[in-house]
Amino acid sequence: MSLIIQKFGGDALGDKGKGRRSDDSDLSGASLHVEKFRHVAEIARATQARGHQVVVVVSAMGDTTNRLLRMAAALSANPPARELDMLMSTGEQQSIALLAIAIESLGGRAMSFTGPQVGIRTDSVFGRSRIREIACDSLKRAVADGFIPIVAGFQGLTEEGQITTLGRGGSDITAVALAAALEADMCEFYKDVDGIFTTDPRVCRGARPIDRICYDEMLELASLGADVLHSRSVEFAKNYNVPLHVRSFLHDGEGTYVVPEEPAMEDIVVRGVAFNRDEAKIAFQGVPDRPGIAAEIFQGIGEAGIVVDMIVQSSAYDGSNDVSFTVGKNDFRRAEDVAQKLNERIGARKIVTDESICKVSAVGVGMRSHSNVAARMFKALSDAGINIQMISTSEIKISVAIAESELERAVQAVHEAFAEDREFATMEEKTN
Amino acid sequence: MSLIIQKFGGDALGDKGKGRRSDDSDLSGASLHVEKFRHVAEIARATQARGHQVVVVVSAMGDTTNRLLRMAAALSANPPARELDMLMSTGEQQSIALLAIAIESLGGRAMSFTGPQVGIRTDSVFGRSRIREIACDSLKRAVADGFIPIVAGFQGLTEEGQITTLGRGGSDITAVALAAALEADMCEFYKDVDGIFTTDPRVCRGARPIDRICYDEMLELASLGADVLHSRSVEFAKNYNVPLHVRSFLHDGEGTYVVPEEPAMEDIVVRGVAFNRDEAKIAFQGVPDRPGIAAEIFQGIGEAGIVVDMIVQSSAYDGSNDVSFTVGKNDFRRAEDVAQKLNERIGARKIVTDESICKVSAVGVGMRSHSNVAARMFKALSDAGINIQMISTSEIKISVAIAESELERAVQAVHEAFAEDREFATMEEKTN
Repeated sequence: MSLIIQKFGGDALGDKGKGRRSDDSDLSGASLHVEKFRHVAEIARATQARGHQVVVVVSAMGDTTNRLLRMAAALSANPPARELDMLMSTGEQQSIALLAIAIESLGGRAMSFTGPQVGIRTDSVFGRSRIREIACDSLKRAVADGFIPIVAGFQGLTEEGQITTLGRGGSDITAVALAAALEADMCEFYKDVDGIFTTDPRVCRGARPIDRICYDEMLELASLGADVLHSRSVEFAKNYNVPLHVRSFLHDGEGTYVVPEEPAMEDIVVRGVAFNRDEAKIAFQGVPDRPGIAAEIFQGIGEAGIVVDMIVQSSAYDGSNDVSFTVGKNDFRRAEDVAQKLNERIGARKIVTDESICKVSAVGVGMRSHSNVAARMFKALSDAGINIQMISTSEIKISVAIAESELERAVQAVHEAFAEDREFATMEEKTN
Repeated sequence: MSLIIQKFGGDALGDKGKGRRSDDSDLSGASLHVEKFRHVAEIARATQARGHQVVVVVSAMGDTTNRLLRMAAALSANPPARELDMLMSTGEQQSIALLAIAIESLGGRAMSFTGPQVGIRTDSVFGRSRIREIACDSLKRAVADGFIPIVAGFQGLTEEGQITTLGRGGSDITAVALAAALEADMCEFYKDVDGIFTTDPRVCRGARPIDRICYDEMLELASLGADVLHSRSVEFAKNYNVPLHVRSFLHDGEGTYVVPEEPAMEDIVVRGVAFNRDEAKIAFQGVPDRPGIAAEIFQGIGEAGIVVDMIVQSSAYDGSNDVSFTVGKNDFRRAEDVAQKLNERIGARKIVTDESICKVSAVGVGMRSHSNVAARMFKALSDAGINIQMISTSEIKISVAIAESELERAVQAVHEAFAEDREFATMEEKTN
């Protein structure tokens, strides 16, 4: 007997505004929800029937969240964060009650728990609080008594009794935190995709689900734009060694296990190819070579509240330096202004900017033990006639900045380069 | 400076499904809600601006309640009461957050409180729990700090941390209980009517708002069908001497004060005329005159779970008795069956039933000190050609059962009879 945490998001509960299910639009909102709640109830019941203990974590129905946010926005351009948390936390509370009702109507035994009832203590940062402590005695009792506890994700309570929410990816974090606190054997995430893919299937037809991936690889993929699991929940899982299982709520097939690194994982050179369209480049060209210049630039950018992604510095033939970096497209205009101002002191020959770039990254722990990975990636891009503007690497990742218009071709080229690789191909066979 | 509790129901927050505002149906639900929340925020702010301390209690938006109930019903024919309370209590939580946002957006200072956050402790009867205790330190602090606390009506928490709801009229009860706990100077109920009327204006055009009424009169009127204030909240107010003020949220005018009895109140013979269509009659005619017969009849009816309203017993010329009583129309068929079975032992000559009756009542503490009130009422009915089937009286009430088809004419006749009365007329003048 295992203890399994099962997390269902808004899409599993009938969020019409998201995902690929445009064919559902004929169904009325309410009946779609009912059908989805029943389906989720059946998944939890079937898991329990196989002899496991089950704790379910749910998000709000997506359309509920949107309706509440629209009303708050109509009332105030700047609603107090405390009141937004009070408002938004009702969405999950509705989901837990409805799912408990659905499970009971199928003959099961369920009991809903709000975050406060579970004893999820957070700090006092409304809208994006962090979990400090979980006192899950009540959950343990309910599980021991044969119930399926249904826990509201995304929400908690401060020591002073204020209702808080955990921010983006909050329900995922609740699930992982509960798995850690209850020492669960597995934390399952039910999604409208089959698992984590080697790259985005919408961009590259050769994309295949990955069957096992380690936390560090997942973190690189998550932070690089693969939005299936939020990176905060993966970090949490890594810190507490919680094995994750990303799978589809549409069918029974196994999805992707996200687990601590295993020795065999290094056999695969590249686990996946990620990309990020939200990049814009600013380059100081011909910067005088004197100490402290880089610090001056990035202190100025940082003080303007702009987050920098890639940073590259290279020396030019004349002894001067080029310092380039990328920022999100939303911050581009402001970053450009700051850069121009900074240059009055720095004295670079010119500032070159490009709003139309993107980033493509190959990720894999196998890079540590395989040579020549970077060269293979660059050759693949070169063979496709794609010009590399910036390069940045970490121990398990190689990223390049290229023109945004070439993103699709670049992802396909890199993906194919490593898909031809024996290990990568083997992995594909296993997951099909 | 006074401390005032203000209670706003679902209709004040934009319940399109209730009340007289069918002309609102063109507005979309969301924008109607926004407009209503702003209006309520302005009422609370204006009260505070006049130098008062204000605590607001709100219900759920009416359409929210209906949508949630529909979903629960679609999932289960018999949803667990605990989960229904978990589900329904989200409605009030949404209202408090939205109202707090509305007040803040007008430049006020508001803070929302769920029932559990206030410390409203209840027993464990899900769906219709009773308040046991209110530990309102947090509210007192918020008021002292200049905030307008917005409290979710209808909900509480058991000692074990379970979320409960108070059942029908629950938000009214929350308001009165808070007024008692905080020793408030007034508990205001904002309605879509001008106050408590001398009778239902839809039935009798002469109906006028009452300016002052005592708890006992209000209880008789409430239990007799005037559904503006639920009788549980009036009883609560009476027990704790909480003065109530029923008034309109549509304009500034004073409505009806519901207060402890005052000596001058006896000057008015009849405060109001109430009626109840939900009555059906069962009569045992020619019952042998022996001790214990009445007990036998009503024990049998009570054991069947049927609530009896009026009971009348009279002696016939031959020494036998007639025992008549009324029940709700829903219970009529069952009560008839039980009566027939009981009669196998009792041996009444026959059982006469009438499903088409109603009850009309005149209520007023003045009856205690004025003679001839009953005779005046009966004469008014007789002059209108209306036959009285049963009569039942209490210290401050005279009720008659008549044919349902004559209800409107009877109410008008009785209302007019006492409207001609000098005191009754004076009362009308004062309220116009």
